Amino acid sequence: MASYLEDLVDYFLSSSALVTYWNYIFPVLVGLYLAISLYDKHRYGRNKKLRITEPAATEKNGSKLDGIEYVGDLEHADYDPLPALEEKPHVPYAGATVTLAQDPLEAAERFYAIANNRRSVRKFSSRPVDVAIVERCIRAAGTAPSGAHTEPWTFCLVSDPSIKASVREIIEAEEFVNYTQRMAKQWVTDLRPIRTNHVKEYLTEAPHLVLVFKQTYGYKVDGDATAKKQHYYNEISTSIATGMLLCAFQCAGLSSLVTTPLNCGPALRTLLERPPNEKLLVLLPVGYPADDCTVPDLQRKPLEDILVRY
Amino acid sequence: MASYLEDLVDYFLSSSALVTYWNYIFPVLVGLYLAISLYDKHRYGRNKKLRITEPAATEKNGSKLDGIEYVGDLEHADYDPLPALEEKPHVPYAGATVTLAQDPLEAAERFYAIANNRRSVRKFSSRPVDVAIVERCIRAAGTAPSGAHTEPWTFCLVSDPSIKASVREIIEAEEFVNYTQRMAKQWVTDLRPIRTNHVKEYLTEAPHLVLVFKQTYGYKVDGDATAKKQHYYNEISTSIATGMLLCAFQCAGLSSLVTTPLNCGPALRTLLERPPNEKLLVLLPVGYPADDCTVPDLQRKPLEDILVRY
Repeated sequence: MASYLEDLVDYFLSSSALVTYWNYIFPVLVGLYLAISLYDKHRYGRNKKLRITEPAATEKNGSKLDGIEYVGDLEHADYDPLPALEEKPHVPYAGATVTLAQDPLEAAERFYAIANNRRSVRKFSSRPVDVAIVERCIRAAGTAPSGAHTEPWTFCLVSDPSIKASVREIIEAEEFVNYTQRMAKQWVTDLRPIRTNHVKEYLTEAPHLVLVFKQTYGYKVDGDATAKKQHYYNEISTSIATGMLLCAFQCAGLSSLVTTPLNCGPALRTLLERPPNEKLLVLLPVGYPADDCTVPDLQRKPLEDILVRY
Repeated sequence: MASYLEDLVDYFLSSSALVTYWNYIFPVLVGLYLAISLYDKHRYGRNKKLRITEPAATEKNGSKLDGIEYVGDLEHADYDPLPALEEKPHVPYAGATVTLAQDPLEAAERFYAIANNRRSVRKFSSRPVDVAIVERCIRAAGTAPSGAHTEPWTFCLVSDPSIKASVREIIEAEEFVNYTQRMAKQWVTDLRPIRTNHVKEYLTEAPHLVLVFKQTYGYKVDGDATAKKQHYYNEISTSIATGMLLCAFQCAGLSSLVTTPLNCGPALRTLLERPPNEKLLVLLPVGYPADDCTVPDLQRKPLEDILVRY
């Protein structure tokens, strides 16, 4: 078979017409390739969103549909999938029973006061924080909604000083390269008012670090435990959970800082021995501000700049 | 010049060595191309993250660095950028002064009770909700942190019944195609326990809809108002703000539902006349659950499944 194919290719390559006209054929091929590429880009955009509209073709491994990346072998013609969740009768829900105040307007105002009291803290006190408080906050973050209730998050709580030191070592080495080489001049300039650089004292000063990993896919619990489970909108879901975590910290009087250690994900994943389906989304130091902590003199946009009424 | 080049290309294409050996040269070129592609993919991943490490090359228009998409003409050799924020002296920050309880553990526990009381509601009562409550909640969401304090979000609050009807029309038409054609069989199956389909009554039943747009870039306020401003991590930032919005709603006793209307973004943006730098991230109906509202009998993962201690 292989030698037959080789013969065919040999014959094809040495056929006189091809040899004679290759200088016409080759540019035509290149032109065709470019035309198809340009058409593709125009029609489907950079990420090839919406490329596939036929269901049979939609579920190819690794294909993307509006931000959804498919994993594993999801579809066969005669494949009858099981839902990731159990199908049970629904239960009544009467709405919120635990709120901040009887009057909803007062409750909203009280929550705003708590939220508006938050600032990103970059200089932490070494004052210890009972790990139980941080754990309760993480438990609250875990109540976040997620695509098809996949709960695609892992919170790594680092309290051990030597592991915090290793985290700092990894991040400072990468951040030095980021600030000096990788980040655009505009980016570094935009960060100047916030006065950040590659030195991250808070990584060892803060009593705890929370590394939030998004699980880009999961594994089925029933049946074949090696079968991959789709995690829809895992980045948005995990970011929403992070927003809830920030609220929890603030309600408990703790300060934190949302950081996105650029390019440190793989090294930190290795350090914390996380599986390959987990990708670092954000890292938050948690604790109390240092006595001499200062923050940028920022204003928040007024409501009229962020709200449009219809 | 052009004709000299043409002559050169002509000469090159018709040189006898190329004609004779093209059947060797062509496969070598194809092989080289494939090898480079594979190396690229292996080294830099699908999104060509980290492709560029030299600063001069990093800031090309539209290039990506670990999820950061550059916009506009950000860099010239002799370009001295201004920071997007004003550079002012920093101010002291003493940490949270408004919390849920004196004792931080009790405060964390109380916030957990509020958060754990939240469920995604798909059947809303038409009971009106004072728009001032929703606006206070949006104001709280607007206190979220964002990359370089860019605040890359717009909250569109739709209360007008006819606009809600138009939103529903757009979404139901797209969702019908999503459910029947675009979504993988596994995806539709995973949603079966949640009992969703393309009919979205809540879009007209709920008294308000909040459409959260992420601003993929902004415009500079000082100087050239048409100059684009970089919005770092705009999706993560806007999702975090959405997480805070959910907390605000829950604190105020309101119910909601995070939805990601697949492929409806452009039509909804047009309907609401939003500018091209804004992309729909999520849509949330807000209100009170209907009297006969039921929710899936879901369990949340226990803390031990989402938390890893180090």
